[in-house]
Amino acid sequence: MTFTQRHLLGIEPLHPSEITTLLDLADDYVRLNRGKRHGDALAGRSQINMFFENSTRTQASFELAGQRLGADVMNMAMQASSIKKGETLIDTALTLNAMHPDLLVVRHPHSGAVDLLAQKVNCAVLNAGDGRHEHPTQALLDALTIRRAKGRLHRLNIAICGDIAHSRVARSNILLLGKMENRVRLVGPPTLLPAGIADFGVEVHDDMREGLRDVDVVMMLRLQKERMDGGFIPSEREYYHRYGLDAEKLSHAKPDAIVMHPGPMNRGVEIDGEIADDINRSVIQEQVEMGVAVRMAAMDLLVRNRTATTTTEGIMA
Amino acid sequence: MTFTQRHLLGIEPLHPSEITTLLDLADDYVRLNRGKRHGDALAGRSQINMFFENSTRTQASFELAGQRLGADVMNMAMQASSIKKGETLIDTALTLNAMHPDLLVVRHPHSGAVDLLAQKVNCAVLNAGDGRHEHPTQALLDALTIRRAKGRLHRLNIAICGDIAHSRVARSNILLLGKMENRVRLVGPPTLLPAGIADFGVEVHDDMREGLRDVDVVMMLRLQKERMDGGFIPSEREYYHRYGLDAEKLSHAKPDAIVMHPGPMNRGVEIDGEIADDINRSVIQEQVEMGVAVRMAAMDLLVRNRTATTTTEGIMA
Amino acid sequence: MTFTQRHLLGIEPLHPSEITTLLDLADDYVRLNRGKRHGDALAGRSQINMFFENSTRTQASFELAGQRLGADVMNMAMQASSIKKGETLIDTALTLNAMHPDLLVVRHPHSGAVDLLAQKVNCAVLNAGDGRHEHPTQALLDALTIRRAKGRLHRLNIAICGDIAHSRVARSNILLLGKMENRVRLVGPPTLLPAGIADFGVEVHDDMREGLRDVDVVMMLRLQKERMDGGFIPSEREYYHRYGLDAEKLSHAKPDAIVMHPGPMNRGVEIDGEIADDINRSVIQEQVEMGVAVRMAAMDLLVRNRTATTTTEGIMA
Repeated sequence: MTFTQRHLLGIEPLHPSEITTLLDLADDYVRLNRGKRHGDALAGRSQINMFFENSTRTQASFELAGQRLGADVMNMAMQASSIKKGETLIDTALTLNAMHPDLLVVRHPHSGAVDLLAQKVNCAVLNAGDGRHEHPTQALLDALTIRRAKGRLHRLNIAICGDIAHSRVARSNILLLGKMENRVRLVGPPTLLPAGIADFGVEVHDDMREGLRDVDVVMMLRLQKERMDGGFIPSEREYYHRYGLDAEKLSHAKPDAIVMHPGPMNRGVEIDGEIADDINRSVIQEQVEMGVAVRMAAMDLLVRNRTATTTTEGIMA
Repeated sequence: MTFTQRHLLGIEPLHPSEITTLLDLADDYVRLNRGKRHGDALAGRSQINMFFENSTRTQASFELAGQRLGADVMNMAMQASSIKKGETLIDTALTLNAMHPDLLVVRHPHSGAVDLLAQKVNCAVLNAGDGRHEHPTQALLDALTIRRAKGRLHRLNIAICGDIAHSRVARSNILLLGKMENRVRLVGPPTLLPAGIADFGVEVHDDMREGLRDVDVVMMLRLQKERMDGGFIPSEREYYHRYGLDAEKLSHAKPDAIVMHPGPMNRGVEIDGEIADDINRSVIQEQVEMGVAVRMAAMDLLVRNRTATTTTEGIMA
Repeated sequence: MTFTQRHLLGIEPLHPSEITTLLDLADDYVRLNRGKRHGDALAGRSQINMFFENSTRTQASFELAGQRLGADVMNMAMQASSIKKGETLIDTALTLNAMHPDLLVVRHPHSGAVDLLAQKVNCAVLNAGDGRHEHPTQALLDALTIRRAKGRLHRLNIAICGDIAHSRVARSNILLLGKMENRVRLVGPPTLLPAGIADFGVEVHDDMREGLRDVDVVMMLRLQKERMDGGFIPSEREYYHRYGLDAEKLSHAKPDAIVMHPGPMNRGVEIDGEIADDINRSVIQEQVEMGVAVRMAAMDLLVRNRTATTTTEGIMA
């Protein structure tokens, strides 16, 4: 086994062989979940979910992943928290750390907040999305979905389409797919591409038909209006006309190209509802299923690494 | 065993023998709970509570019921959910379904929303109240309470009193008590009776003293001001005078008549506080206790039916 | 074993030997937690947390404590509760009681509300803070922290500093430290001392340097602006100048004096950030750790007492 990380803060620090190790274990957990069996890799372990941004689907996925492996899962309602009473993020982290959790799953609106927190605590930290920085478990679940659908995770042509500027999902996916030696294209309006896009080492397209030509995977992104602070906001109708995925635009991709979306979808804005529901093309539900398995694998590996390198009795005992 | 349902969406689809099967099993669970023992019928199963309307008491009852049988219970905060981000109910349902839960407990403000959802998912769905349609576990817990107090659940005279128009509790109770061959009377102001009341096949009374005459069971309803949109709103004082249950009005019922209320109570509005607390007449606390047992029985039976008819490995494994 | 309480409502009813029994058991649980082992003293037990005031840290501590001992823990969102629908506290309590929980953990803004509730239910009730009355688990975790740092819990000089008038933490600590025969001094502005302070049998100081002279323990309190209704509100700058703990003021205490704070801290208001973080003086993180252990011990002892004195089958079975 080659997974040596102590946290899962992003895709950036991962070695390709670590990605493969994690996806292989996640494949095992897909079978466990479908078989309605229950693992015990996290029995007696405490997992704390700290979501400073609401996310029903990601939080639910992490919670189920922990429960399926026997963890005690605690959700902290961070809006209603001590933060209102003037406590700093670091003090909140130190307080939780003193309670001896094993796993801390954190979503935070500020890029880098999760990394900062990881430096202050003794337990394993998983980044469930920080600002516009990374969302590693989303990229890993996308990778697992692609690998299962295509039989491999290398030398594929993959188009990531839409609101890339506001998307940590896009950023983590670009990193992961690049590490695994795929050809990534970004497709979207120039106003929704991040500054310094040239540095990513990816092709960029303004036109969906060109961008989708002969790709194996079409990865749509959510139009994140809630993140657009003051910038250009396209009308939904105009956006759908030019960048929404419909049957005609999809016809430019390979005949067996799969369609992905991280959810929640804006049907009729970035994607046509019929394509989203087409079980021959869309793997959107499978992405959700893979999400639970990937998070089980990540938490399992991180706890194994902790157990291997920590003496079981604490310092002050 | 004669319980063949795959969901518990309402009382309407249940055969009388299914009701009896469920109540018999619930009786067993009352004993388990009082004995402080712990069941394992749902060990390793995932139960998701999706409450689109707040309900402390019903949600707590379902959560405890799941925990008592060993389930992993997850509560989704649906107000803070992806629904705000524009996701449809169906997409939310499909997303949860892809996480392979075993039981989905749903409360929703729109009549029929829970039925719609059940058509889209692979797991068992329990209706915890949908609009003005049904609230089947409430009717089942009322039935168990009556059966334990009266020794039978047939040929009883039962008055359902108060705000019937806004009450899914009343509707499910009318259906259940009718199926079990009891004589049901509805008592309340004509403005709070539902349209088409004649079709229910029940006696209707405007006067409490007439309505309660010689009944075995007095079932009071909560005055649901929060559901009265634009209609006639009686003053509380006037309402209590004419329809609130007090000692004098209760004296018209049989001497051993029991008093029920689904909670939460408006003391001094639909019921006198002293009658609510009179342990010789009121079975209101017992209703709450039966609620946990009935929900345990319902979830146990639904999971058994799923296990019996599903291959354990999924379609795509 | 000398712990004979049926509830933990405050420090006031506890005998010194009961305090010692509880702290001894908590010491065992500190070792269990540091060893990443899992207890089962509460396996199959239902713990309900009812927080009528938000408190991330205290609620998390109780939840983790229950999980570590195998309890099924349920959190009730009491803001969103039936209380909005007009239900009384007593009716809420009776409803929960009818669901047969084993442990009820309650925080409430009104002094005495938790005692009232305890009279109405059959299960063990733990006070997690009621108004300005008591917060017994905080005083117990402070006591355990002191005993571990100083090797004893008697004949110590202890200064409790700051906003004493609004603090149930101060009140419970004064009671506990007095019972264990320590010398307690209160230090703070006269406007933030409680009326009738003379009755407490403690020294009172207006000046921090005098108040801290030769103390073994400096216990800082949070400036609770949210509780100051209409009274004198000091400016933060002025407050810090006169009453905030900094290196100079601390130099008047014994060289090995420890610094405590119940959290969440207002850094730069009641305490200098550097002192809070000084691992040679501050035991603030250890207080949090002791909190989980003390709550495990309290719940374990209360459940043992219930089991010893209750027949296992209920009254109405």
